[in-house]
Amino acid sequence: MHKNFKGIEKTVFGRGCFSQLGEIVEEQRNQNDRFMLYLVDNYFKGKEFEKQIPAKSSDVVTFFDVDPEEPTTTHIDNLRDRIKNSKGIPAAVIGIGGGSIMDLAKAVSLMFTNEGSSTKYQGLNLIKKPGIYHIGVPTISGTGAEVSMTAVLTGPEKKLGLKCEWTVFNQVVLDPDLIATVPRDKWFYTGMDTYIHCIESRDGILNNAYSSSYGNQALALCRDIYLGDKSGQTKENDEKLMVASLMGGMSLTYSEVGIVHAMSYGLSKILGEKHCYANCLAFQHLSDYYPAGVKEFTEMTKKHNIQLPKGISKKWSEETITAMANVSIKLEHMWNHAIGLDWKSKITLDTVKDLFRRL
Amino acid sequence: MHKNFKGIEKTVFGRGCFSQLGEIVEEQRNQNDRFMLYLVDNYFKGKEFEKQIPAKSSDVVTFFDVDPEEPTTTHIDNLRDRIKNSKGIPAAVIGIGGGSIMDLAKAVSLMFTNEGSSTKYQGLNLIKKPGIYHIGVPTISGTGAEVSMTAVLTGPEKKLGLKCEWTVFNQVVLDPDLIATVPRDKWFYTGMDTYIHCIESRDGILNNAYSSSYGNQALALCRDIYLGDKSGQTKENDEKLMVASLMGGMSLTYSEVGIVHAMSYGLSKILGEKHCYANCLAFQHLSDYYPAGVKEFTEMTKKHNIQLPKGISKKWSEETITAMANVSIKLEHMWNHAIGLDWKSKITLDTVKDLFRRL
Repeated sequence: MHKNFKGIEKTVFGRGCFSQLGEIVEEQRNQNDRFMLYLVDNYFKGKEFEKQIPAKSSDVVTFFDVDPEEPTTTHIDNLRDRIKNSKGIPAAVIGIGGGSIMDLAKAVSLMFTNEGSSTKYQGLNLIKKPGIYHIGVPTISGTGAEVSMTAVLTGPEKKLGLKCEWTVFNQVVLDPDLIATVPRDKWFYTGMDTYIHCIESRDGILNNAYSSSYGNQALALCRDIYLGDKSGQTKENDEKLMVASLMGGMSLTYSEVGIVHAMSYGLSKILGEKHCYANCLAFQHLSDYYPAGVKEFTEMTKKHNIQLPKGISKKWSEETITAMANVSIKLEHMWNHAIGLDWKSKITLDTVKDLFRRL
Repeated sequence: MHKNFKGIEKTVFGRGCFSQLGEIVEEQRNQNDRFMLYLVDNYFKGKEFEKQIPAKSSDVVTFFDVDPEEPTTTHIDNLRDRIKNSKGIPAAVIGIGGGSIMDLAKAVSLMFTNEGSSTKYQGLNLIKKPGIYHIGVPTISGTGAEVSMTAVLTGPEKKLGLKCEWTVFNQVVLDPDLIATVPRDKWFYTGMDTYIHCIESRDGILNNAYSSSYGNQALALCRDIYLGDKSGQTKENDEKLMVASLMGGMSLTYSEVGIVHAMSYGLSKILGEKHCYANCLAFQHLSDYYPAGVKEFTEMTKKHNIQLPKGISKKWSEETITAMANVSIKLEHMWNHAIGLDWKSKITLDTVKDLFRRL
């Protein structure tokens, strides 16, 4: 049984294409209660870019600060209730930001049409009805959230996506100019999310010609961007990173992530570490599982003077380590992909705890 | 203004996934007059594979011989009228075959809902209404017809696609096992269509990071398949070719084809040459326009003992050459992409006639 995946319905790519958003949005104006809900990264509040958002007076523009924490089920439920009670159901939701904003936009789109708390729907195919029209406009590239069928949410019990075919964006607007101002550390960590999930996608039993073709091209682009003669935050590399993010997302969709993401979810859930940074924290110590990938990753950190902390596990209690390992080992599909069908005979809770102790 | 493209809605990829077609088709059963229309390459008639087509007794299975000629507007109109008059409008159209069958399935899907002859709709965005649900199942890979927004048809006046966002398949089923039995010459010429349109897509003014990422990966796959140590018709290469075809189609969609396709359309329209073969006939003589591409293409022909005829233009009358050049030069978007905005100052009808005389 092979996976049958929904793709993004419409994609526009190119420098300056953000100026086409207004026209794209207006095509949806007659849906539902005829207003738009813009979810925008707080980074842009008060900046020149804010004025370019094509919102009309009847539309809602909400800024969201993704820095203190990643999107939670409470964020989503509160946002949905607040908008629904005050204005009704939007014609479309437009997310403008990084991976967390993409996740918020996808999740809230679904929660306008599916009743109750979003905690009920964390998992695969638990959503009952298609969401409202949703448009993704990435301003940070790397997570692949703009193409994935998952809206990752941290809930009271678990960090797990609303995952179904209706999660996928109806439209994405890929304007490389929008990622030009990403701070250097975020540019690195978020790009490394693409790099890491392409390595995980490739090095596991679910790898196939489709996912590896996307993954290999994304890896080639990452090498240009982070290791090549012209590496760094240039216009040309912004274009490449935007495509790498999309292709990396396709690669993992048709294959699976592995040990890095399994550990990263533990780090985020228990310690609140941001996803992309948490991936990097874990990946550097996994050269026995991903030798070629970790070697190249280390070269990239050196080239860009990225200092990842080491020895951080010394400050963690046994309880914290156990809690993170418990979150991690429950992501069975990731361990299965990375280690093989017999992974349970090779990986125990103690193995995973030891992996966390490497950090 | 950047192009905003519709993608394939759903994609399943993997060896043996053809067995999932029945289930996929049944999800559409309640649409329109509740029968399915299967358009199948005549090659499979009477073969073992025919029994695996999941048609029910109320469904229509039509075999279509694509060898004598490429799909015409007359084929489409007659097929639509015959089915509509006898059984009504299908729930879905399923095309099982190579590029011509893909074009037929896409075109007839649109013509069940758009009135009159398909000749009325040859061009960009002339179609008025979405077609019926259509599913593409490629059994020959290379043209990219499974992913493109064009259904190429030869009409009484021109060879030109029905091109709009509704042309794109709702679902594609990519089973590499289905291309295992492609005859060697077709395997070569059709694969070269991917190779050639990736070169054309790259070497022109509309090239961009999105189209070149798809194109470069498709070219890398073509090199593995046709030049690598493990080149040839193997299971692994069948998987790669299926992905290369899809990615090559994406590359040209977001960029443009060039001189080879402009000439190829002339060869097909006037002499009835098959598209992929016609591309090869022209490409071998265009090393001044595509030096690196033609060099590599020549290596591929040598490696697989492909003998392309030369000197064929000697048999053509002046009238034939003029007719082909007239078809070719009217494809202005291709010349514009390949030569540049000032192409009309560089390319005249005589230039194009001289290009045909090289053959």
